[in-house]
Amino acid sequence: MTDTAVSPLAPAGFPELPDVAGVELATVAAGLRYKGRPDMLLARLAAGTRVAGVLTQSSMPGAPVDWCRKQLPKGRARALLVNAGNANVFTGRAGIQAVTAAAAGVAETLGCPRGQVMVASTGVIGERLEPAAVVKALPRLAKALKPNAWRAAADAIRTTDTFAKAAGATAMIDGKPVAIAGIAKGSGMIAPDMATMLSFIFTDAALPADVLRGLLKPINERSFNAITVDSDTSTSDTVLLFATGAAKAGKGIEKAGDRRLADFKAKLEMVMGDLARQIVRDGEGATKLIEVAVTGAASAKSAKRIALAIGNSPLVKTAIAGEDANWGRIVMAVGKSAERADRDRLAIRIGGVLVADEGYVHPDYREADIVPHMKGDEITIEVDVGVGRGKATIWTCDLTHGYISINADYRS
Amino acid sequence: MTDTAVSPLAPAGFPELPDVAGVELATVAAGLRYKGRPDMLLARLAAGTRVAGVLTQSSMPGAPVDWCRKQLPKGRARALLVNAGNANVFTGRAGIQAVTAAAAGVAETLGCPRGQVMVASTGVIGERLEPAAVVKALPRLAKALKPNAWRAAADAIRTTDTFAKAAGATAMIDGKPVAIAGIAKGSGMIAPDMATMLSFIFTDAALPADVLRGLLKPINERSFNAITVDSDTSTSDTVLLFATGAAKAGKGIEKAGDRRLADFKAKLEMVMGDLARQIVRDGEGATKLIEVAVTGAASAKSAKRIALAIGNSPLVKTAIAGEDANWGRIVMAVGKSAERADRDRLAIRIGGVLVADEGYVHPDYREADIVPHMKGDEITIEVDVGVGRGKATIWTCDLTHGYISINADYRS
Repeated sequence: MTDTAVSPLAPAGFPELPDVAGVELATVAAGLRYKGRPDMLLARLAAGTRVAGVLTQSSMPGAPVDWCRKQLPKGRARALLVNAGNANVFTGRAGIQAVTAAAAGVAETLGCPRGQVMVASTGVIGERLEPAAVVKALPRLAKALKPNAWRAAADAIRTTDTFAKAAGATAMIDGKPVAIAGIAKGSGMIAPDMATMLSFIFTDAALPADVLRGLLKPINERSFNAITVDSDTSTSDTVLLFATGAAKAGKGIEKAGDRRLADFKAKLEMVMGDLARQIVRDGEGATKLIEVAVTGAASAKSAKRIALAIGNSPLVKTAIAGEDANWGRIVMAVGKSAERADRDRLAIRIGGVLVADEGYVHPDYREADIVPHMKGDEITIEVDVGVGRGKATIWTCDLTHGYISINADYRS
Repeated sequence: MTDTAVSPLAPAGFPELPDVAGVELATVAAGLRYKGRPDMLLARLAAGTRVAGVLTQSSMPGAPVDWCRKQLPKGRARALLVNAGNANVFTGRAGIQAVTAAAAGVAETLGCPRGQVMVASTGVIGERLEPAAVVKALPRLAKALKPNAWRAAADAIRTTDTFAKAAGATAMIDGKPVAIAGIAKGSGMIAPDMATMLSFIFTDAALPADVLRGLLKPINERSFNAITVDSDTSTSDTVLLFATGAAKAGKGIEKAGDRRLADFKAKLEMVMGDLARQIVRDGEGATKLIEVAVTGAASAKSAKRIALAIGNSPLVKTAIAGEDANWGRIVMAVGKSAERADRDRLAIRIGGVLVADEGYVHPDYREADIVPHMKGDEITIEVDVGVGRGKATIWTCDLTHGYISINADYRS
């Protein structure tokens, strides 16, 4: 829905991305649902490309997710096909047939095994995706392939997104530069009707699939798995990390923990964190980006659950929309998380100001001190729950009339 | 906040309640926070009254909850003191002192042990409750005590509630009639800033505390623990069931499972279910009452988790606010519950109409068939997840601009 006003939290512009050798991109207006805008993306990947992925935990996954889950263990990819507008979810046998036909079509068009074609879809649930319409678009896509068409690629996968999302970096492996470029879409952590979180990250490093998996999982926990817009989990969430190997750098590395990957790992986390926060910045109706950092928890997992209880609380999110430093609601959210926390040692900082401490409002706290912070568009909440050393940070956005309008008012 | 417009889902009027022998009630405008309206309730209970309770699971409970948790195992009560406007939560040592002073004051005024005084508070978090102001109101309360002042009692405990909540019934135990009368307050499942779920149910049956506990817990699971407005859990939730014994009926019954309690149990569930649904009907911004019934789950617990995932989904709730039978969002919510469910056997009925079946939209389904149901103010959603025999029903309300306005816009 490209006619929506751009989010007030959008970045200033589309970023510069590095060239990733071994990746070619093409988009086309296939008219699957949208009229007059590109809605399909094809990526051709160099021979030898390795892939790792993270898929939705939903028990109602879409057919493309089932497909990727089946292919990813082999760790090899030669192509990626994405369509926007139809999620191909809850479509029964027809959904499986559509994915199979699409992958077979790409395999034939590009001359590669169909098991090396990754597929992702985003859009409405429960509508049949016509295989014929998808297959028909493939020759046009194949003809349009060219390197570094990042902006077009990021645009083609949008649904309710109000801006195109991308991030990139150059990392050094063993003294040699490698490129990392990623695109993403998403506008509710998940809004399954017209939005779903997808992200595709490409590098020309030469890394085996096992290493990619070892890198992707923990970084995904701290980036895409550390954001929430509305607590609703998509049926289609997909993150794929492709390494074409065209840069040669990385050859011989066999473990994600290899010290030579330190810079690559840091840059990958930068790129994925940036993309994840861009999704929150485009959260439906969002006017504020909120960072919630929890410390002093029983474990990192517990800290994350507490942070998400705060970040998903409608009462915390509406208070922030109203620029109200309502720390009582933060206490409530910690309390409801069902995680260990010591009420009488709880400390809360908002915008760096100590608001509550030792289970009570801090004697020096004056609400006026944080009014300017609350009026800004990036809010930080720090909570120490006083029982251990576990910590975690998550990002969310406020809950506004805009969210209700987008999700309830469109009905004519 | 008695100036709020009454919820469109409010019952037609305040119900007729039976006389409950052994209960006297009084209210007073103590001016703890509100001006010019009663904000304190005192109940005097006949000697020998037994009590059972259910308290919030929050790890940040208010001082009154701590107090009740300590006294309830003894199972005896002679008084109940409730104040509205200040929750006495996150108030550290001062909070404990305030509760202790209040209970001691009531004990002295009425001549009973302080451990038999139950206390509950609702309202803002983090503000000190002045013990002196509470104690000062006690003589006036004691003087005003009279039987059956239900309407005044239900009014005095309101915060953001737009109407007073009560329900009653007469049940037969062993051929003898006993009265049940309950009042409640709450307007978000929990909105800790100005609302919290409290309910007090009184009967003149003569039942020991163990039996009351045995009755209360499972019925609470199917009533107050089966409602959600915004998924936020209060620091103050309190449900207390008092049995004065004045009716004598029930003497000699020692087990909640006793067959002689069948009618009493049914009537108690009717009263508690009615009160619970009244809270949802007064949900902040609510325009529709939603019943979600899940069947075919792995267990009753699993069914309830799935039902709550649907009932707490902002996307499901906004869709219903928009009168949109968006069953794709129901599929999504089932998927995110992390409970066992078979996508390819999932069936969904809205307003009794079969919408989806066997993992796909039903061929006979026409959206026009349920448009009239969606326009009504009571929506039913039935979901069979196709893996077992577990079932559960929960109640929630829609998510509207009204919710955002109440929780975000009050900031000047």
